[in-house]
Amino acid sequence: MSEKNLRIVLAARPAGWVDPSNFRLEETPVPVPGEGEVLVRVRWLSLDPYMRGRMNEGRSYAARVELGEVMVGGTLGEVVASRHPGFAAGELVVGHLGWQRFGVAPAKALMKVPDPRLPETAWLGAAGMPGVTSWMGFREIGGLVAGQTVVVSSASGAVGSVAGQLAKIAGCRAVGIAGGAAKCDYVTKELGFDACVDYKAGPVHESLKAACPGGIDVYFDNVAGEILEAVLRRVNARARIALCGLISGYNGEDIPIRNVFSLLVNRVRLQGFIVSDRMDLWPEAIRELAGHVGAGRIRYRETITEGLESAPASLVALLKGENFGKRLVRVS
Amino acid sequence: MSEKNLRIVLAARPAGWVDPSNFRLEETPVPVPGEGEVLVRVRWLSLDPYMRGRMNEGRSYAARVELGEVMVGGTLGEVVASRHPGFAAGELVVGHLGWQRFGVAPAKALMKVPDPRLPETAWLGAAGMPGVTSWMGFREIGGLVAGQTVVVSSASGAVGSVAGQLAKIAGCRAVGIAGGAAKCDYVTKELGFDACVDYKAGPVHESLKAACPGGIDVYFDNVAGEILEAVLRRVNARARIALCGLISGYNGEDIPIRNVFSLLVNRVRLQGFIVSDRMDLWPEAIRELAGHVGAGRIRYRETITEGLESAPASLVALLKGENFGKRLVRVS
Repeated sequence: MSEKNLRIVLAARPAGWVDPSNFRLEETPVPVPGEGEVLVRVRWLSLDPYMRGRMNEGRSYAARVELGEVMVGGTLGEVVASRHPGFAAGELVVGHLGWQRFGVAPAKALMKVPDPRLPETAWLGAAGMPGVTSWMGFREIGGLVAGQTVVVSSASGAVGSVAGQLAKIAGCRAVGIAGGAAKCDYVTKELGFDACVDYKAGPVHESLKAACPGGIDVYFDNVAGEILEAVLRRVNARARIALCGLISGYNGEDIPIRNVFSLLVNRVRLQGFIVSDRMDLWPEAIRELAGHVGAGRIRYRETITEGLESAPASLVALLKGENFGKRLVRVS
Repeated sequence: MSEKNLRIVLAARPAGWVDPSNFRLEETPVPVPGEGEVLVRVRWLSLDPYMRGRMNEGRSYAARVELGEVMVGGTLGEVVASRHPGFAAGELVVGHLGWQRFGVAPAKALMKVPDPRLPETAWLGAAGMPGVTSWMGFREIGGLVAGQTVVVSSASGAVGSVAGQLAKIAGCRAVGIAGGAAKCDYVTKELGFDACVDYKAGPVHESLKAACPGGIDVYFDNVAGEILEAVLRRVNARARIALCGLISGYNGEDIPIRNVFSLLVNRVRLQGFIVSDRMDLWPEAIRELAGHVGAGRIRYRETITEGLESAPASLVALLKGENFGKRLVRVS
């Protein structure tokens, strides 16, 4: 192969906000698969908030990226060469090949696209890791009980948008929280949430009160911070809070939880979770989500940037909330 | 009956710390039991931290005490007159007759002392509500897994002392947190905890690190605030925190939880609970706890004050942490 590999490595750890200068673009030879491995040409790179945590020095829930290493990321690509009998050139596979054009992975770290009828990118979004994250938060912590009120922050994002739609499918009242009128319109009119609170438009506590007249039973939390505080002022007895992310805190600042008394008085269950803890449940989750996507019960929007080189700036935009739906990079 | 009833009512709601002037002693006629009711002469009144919450104006997990009403409280007493076939004069009963010498209750709100071999006061302590609270926190939230490390705050108190001993019985490493060398000595030497951190002696975080070299798997939290923060710095993956009380916050001040990132990274489950939510489990809990007390596997200490009139000052002392074990008032 005369082609070169293009890859983006971590050049420096961010202090506070991520900056494109934290990354470095490199040209290297295309890697060669060993026995049992598969060479993949990446078509799509998924950008997700968890990436911020991997850039830090300290302990996170997964191994950090070392300086000079290829930045991690979920990918969808096409098999170029296979040294494993289960894969053949031309097949589409989902994996974690990171921010590069070509990657090699052991066969067991790849999943063949299960259903060619869905758009390719769905396997990185609503029927992929972000969708499974929503599903898992309800399965493991939140529970979905018809008639209850479910609040979802980052409601227009890849995870939040699926969370609210899963709540609706289960017969719940779904209330989103998002920044700005355009996102809120999208959340209610396109995604079918019952209401959406614009956290930029005024005190969240008051809008939340208006949007949740019967209180809050489940909160799918993608942000923590002040919004979690506001939710704690409105929770019902035995409310469940699935703590999925704290995008506002990924830069390392500590965001205390206030209204702790409410946790006790209302017997709230607040629990952090990581979608990769229960890999055994992924097949069930993906089957269910793909079914919803295929039937049009789960809708989504994508923000796509062109070319691997666009990934650093696109991640910064994601982390700053300049985002609509699933953020993807078209790599090739 | 020529005897008079003596009772203590809520005279004013506290602003901050409870003061004896929040209460008023009254002399009233001895109440007369109606059909299906039982008249009880109270021998022992239990004083417990939850009482602080009932004195507030706002919503709590149970009905507040109204001004002029008898202050609530668990009691052990002797049946004086019964208009229910299930109870007879002279029997010992546990109930919630409050801060008074004589009280009337429907038969279904009373429990006969199940085993005459235990000391009477055990039914208000290790084999009563405080003990059941410990038991419930592990059953519903904490879980006890042999070999894991269980941290208990207010370890010398009525709830904490039983919690640590239940952890030891289950084969866990039990680490207490208490204020002062005398309490810590009691916790390790008399109650058999493996270690005890004196929160008055220095930074809790550092002492906790030394006492929990393998991290923390379960935290039975009676105080919240800074100690919870310190615990969150040492929790292991999938730690469970049973939020039972926040004695430091009962006066209404908000105590934020810091180190929220740890909740996510370590997939911590933090959950508030109220022992009365699962009344169905009480018989099982009491049977088990009474067995441990009877066999000497659970030990306890009591702080007793004499006479109903001593209750207000004794509650203040309890809330200020001037406490060793179970606090009781000998009423008659």
